[in-house]
Amino acid sequence: MKASLDRRLVSEFIGTGLLVAAVVGSGIMAEKLSNGNVALALLANTIATGAALVALILTFGPISGAHFNPAVSLGDAMEGGLTWAEGGAYIFAQVLGGLSGTVTAHVMFGLPVVSASHHARSGGAQFAGEFIATFGLLSVIWGCSRSRSTVVPFAVAAYITAAYWFTSSTSFANPAVTIARSVSDTFAGVRPNDVPLFVLAQFSGALASTLLFRWLVPNLNGQAENLVVPHDAEMTGAAAGDAAR
Amino acid sequence: MKASLDRRLVSEFIGTGLLVAAVVGSGIMAEKLSNGNVALALLANTIATGAALVALILTFGPISGAHFNPAVSLGDAMEGGLTWAEGGAYIFAQVLGGLSGTVTAHVMFGLPVVSASHHARSGGAQFAGEFIATFGLLSVIWGCSRSRSTVVPFAVAAYITAAYWFTSSTSFANPAVTIARSVSDTFAGVRPNDVPLFVLAQFSGALASTLLFRWLVPNLNGQAENLVVPHDAEMTGAAAGDAAR
Amino acid sequence: MKASLDRRLVSEFIGTGLLVAAVVGSGIMAEKLSNGNVALALLANTIATGAALVALILTFGPISGAHFNPAVSLGDAMEGGLTWAEGGAYIFAQVLGGLSGTVTAHVMFGLPVVSASHHARSGGAQFAGEFIATFGLLSVIWGCSRSRSTVVPFAVAAYITAAYWFTSSTSFANPAVTIARSVSDTFAGVRPNDVPLFVLAQFSGALASTLLFRWLVPNLNGQAENLVVPHDAEMTGAAAGDAAR
Amino acid sequence: MKASLDRRLVSEFIGTGLLVAAVVGSGIMAEKLSNGNVALALLANTIATGAALVALILTFGPISGAHFNPAVSLGDAMEGGLTWAEGGAYIFAQVLGGLSGTVTAHVMFGLPVVSASHHARSGGAQFAGEFIATFGLLSVIWGCSRSRSTVVPFAVAAYITAAYWFTSSTSFANPAVTIARSVSDTFAGVRPNDVPLFVLAQFSGALASTLLFRWLVPNLNGQAENLVVPHDAEMTGAAAGDAAR
Repeated sequence: MKASLDRRLVSEFIGTGLLVAAVVGSGIMAEKLSNGNVALALLANTIATGAALVALILTFGPISGAHFNPAVSLGDAMEGGLTWAEGGAYIFAQVLGGLSGTVTAHVMFGLPVVSASHHARSGGAQFAGEFIATFGLLSVIWGCSRSRSTVVPFAVAAYITAAYWFTSSTSFANPAVTIARSVSDTFAGVRPNDVPLFVLAQFSGALASTLLFRWLVPNLNGQAENLVVPHDAEMTGAAAGDAAR
Repeated sequence: MKASLDRRLVSEFIGTGLLVAAVVGSGIMAEKLSNGNVALALLANTIATGAALVALILTFGPISGAHFNPAVSLGDAMEGGLTWAEGGAYIFAQVLGGLSGTVTAHVMFGLPVVSASHHARSGGAQFAGEFIATFGLLSVIWGCSRSRSTVVPFAVAAYITAAYWFTSSTSFANPAVTIARSVSDTFAGVRPNDVPLFVLAQFSGALASTLLFRWLVPNLNGQAENLVVPHDAEMTGAAAGDAAR
Repeated sequence: MKASLDRRLVSEFIGTGLLVAAVVGSGIMAEKLSNGNVALALLANTIATGAALVALILTFGPISGAHFNPAVSLGDAMEGGLTWAEGGAYIFAQVLGGLSGTVTAHVMFGLPVVSASHHARSGGAQFAGEFIATFGLLSVIWGCSRSRSTVVPFAVAAYITAAYWFTSSTSFANPAVTIARSVSDTFAGVRPNDVPLFVLAQFSGALASTLLFRWLVPNLNGQAENLVVPHDAEMTGAAAGDAAR
Repeated sequence: MKASLDRRLVSEFIGTGLLVAAVVGSGIMAEKLSNGNVALALLANTIATGAALVALILTFGPISGAHFNPAVSLGDAMEGGLTWAEGGAYIFAQVLGGLSGTVTAHVMFGLPVVSASHHARSGGAQFAGEFIATFGLLSVIWGCSRSRSTVVPFAVAAYITAAYWFTSSTSFANPAVTIARSVSDTFAGVRPNDVPLFVLAQFSGALASTLLFRWLVPNLNGQAENLVVPHDAEMTGAAAGDAAR
């Protein structure tokens, strides 16, 4: 038995919020301490983000699957893991959670609660970066979803850790996080004007990966019920059984 | 069968001691070698702390659960995993262990055994930081405790690795560690005057997370017996059985 | 049942492509941001490469084994895991994938699609470095292949992370990646003239390791069917079964 | 059935050799690239060492247990996992392997094959550092040996990663590695004169930990057969069975 929808939405809200707080907060801290050494700041930002993903997917995965990402929920709905109504509710919770995460980071560092970013990220190279970033992320998720094991959180975190460095856009790869980062005029920000292009590239990359993996893994559809992390009755049941012993 | 209480308390004492030795000691080394580059020093301090958590939770978890943290033991007592008397004894062992850890670090680096810190960390932003830090830590523990797997040590370590960077307070998230760090006038120190506010924020965050997860995971209470890591008869028995074969 | 050969070749093509995109792309980003601090640039390049390996082996391993490396496919063919025809097809897909990865990285960073590298890497010390690097890589693969567990991707990634630093050549250890890096005049490049020596050292190291492990692990031959990661019917079947429940 | 003694000794020889090559080689590379920034050099040296440990323990553990360390083999002999004769042979193979590792690193970087180190590391603080370092290492091994799982290599690697930073001696914690590092006048070296004190501190720390864990874990003796990683018939048998299917 899956957790009730309200619990799953709260899980997506808090998880996405903490993820964005980690991305934005570590960016603020890193920029403050690194005396203009951008490579060092990005390295700290990368390690904090990757580590946060491991912790948060392991924590909230058993409740809601730990999508934290509209591109993932959309792919899941395409493959029948979520109804379209659930998918919409997931995305709404993620966007709201992401914005709350930015506010939380700002409060922790004594900054104004929101501030429009002036960090320009646009052009064809950035579009290609976000396309590849999200194509890769969805590929990791589709490729690993069959193993049903605890390695998926590590695979996703490792992928993002790498993609921060190998894409020109530093791999947002997540529409909810992109929107949340547009209201933070700090290290991790992105100009609100550049958000639409990023989101378009992200959904395009996600779509391309989903179509590829439909062919690459013929029984993909059956896996979609349990993205990113198994969150159905089996696991909960096993845990309840353990506890009852 | 759980380990006897005296063994569990020694386990908490040594584990917390080595954890604090790692936090304080790596801070001393990092500051000494980094020529004033604070981002680099904090990065080394972060990696050492996260790695120490992985090793120490895996080592002492099967004996005492590897709480190393009064906020965790309190949450565990609230949910019935420890009696209140055991909880008090755990906390006493953790505080004593933490102080010994500071002394150990100082001896290893040829410093006076204790020294009051002058590192000011106070104000509303720092309070918010410690609240969020401990809220997140307890959420990770409650969220992962159902899986009963070996990933919990990695989840906790990953969370703290991220939280060193995304909270303004560098995420102490642990009253015993906070007290221990107040008697070290080094990189990882905190002014004794600032300890009460930190501890208040930490217990508040832990309480908020515990209440949230009571709703989010209806069978949470049943998990509390085995925080942070399963440390009951099943595991020991299995190991003994393996060894006897 | 293994995936069909066309699916496995596409898997090797895309996996090697994303791996090279990660290696070359993170090198470009790292050099751009590190203001001439080569240690910091190599550290970022290392972390991105290691993390990419974790993610990509977990993703594509269940389909094609995630060799991504002609030296691995050759060793696998020697031990009977692949027919020689399959081995040749794997190598072709890897080389093509690697070149596409370089192009992808260049497009993401707005550079010319290909450019001959001027980065000289030659001489006896570099030959020794590549020999040891590939000897070690194949040893890790042969040594871990018996465990059939999910740790193999982590072992391979950890090995390469270390080898970037402990070999004088920064451990290419992969003929397809070497060729792909020769057409990138960036941080991770290698002069086309130096490619033959690198490839010779790599195949020699792989051969030495395979011969050693034939003696060290008498039943090595039986493992070769499932390099680097199990990719046969059992896993797919189990997953399908899970999904059908 | 365990692997034959000659195979186990070759495994210890090669494993210790590659470990020392990683420690010494990454130190050379890190010092060369870091322009005198010692924190950055130590960070690279740390990451390379920790990653090498993960890979090498996973690779050679199933053959010989992957001790790579006389202090571990001595503790194992004390608890009955190795006969004293086997223990002596293990230690001999480790020392020889370590020296070969230094030579390998020097050859890869075009340096004289051996050179006495001038890096002074002595005094009470360093003694305390090595005592604590090895006490902690053996505690991790004894504490985790009951779990028989694949996490042990990660626990050991994580511990050493932390201990490089939190001990004043940068945590050699291994007599064979100490001897090997005394003939390398590079970043990771140690003056030959300082070796006896280091080795004394290391064996003292190992002894203290073994005595403590005898009390802390009453059935410790039964675990000693399979240090650091299970290397008996069960695992090999299972793998052979899998392969035969």
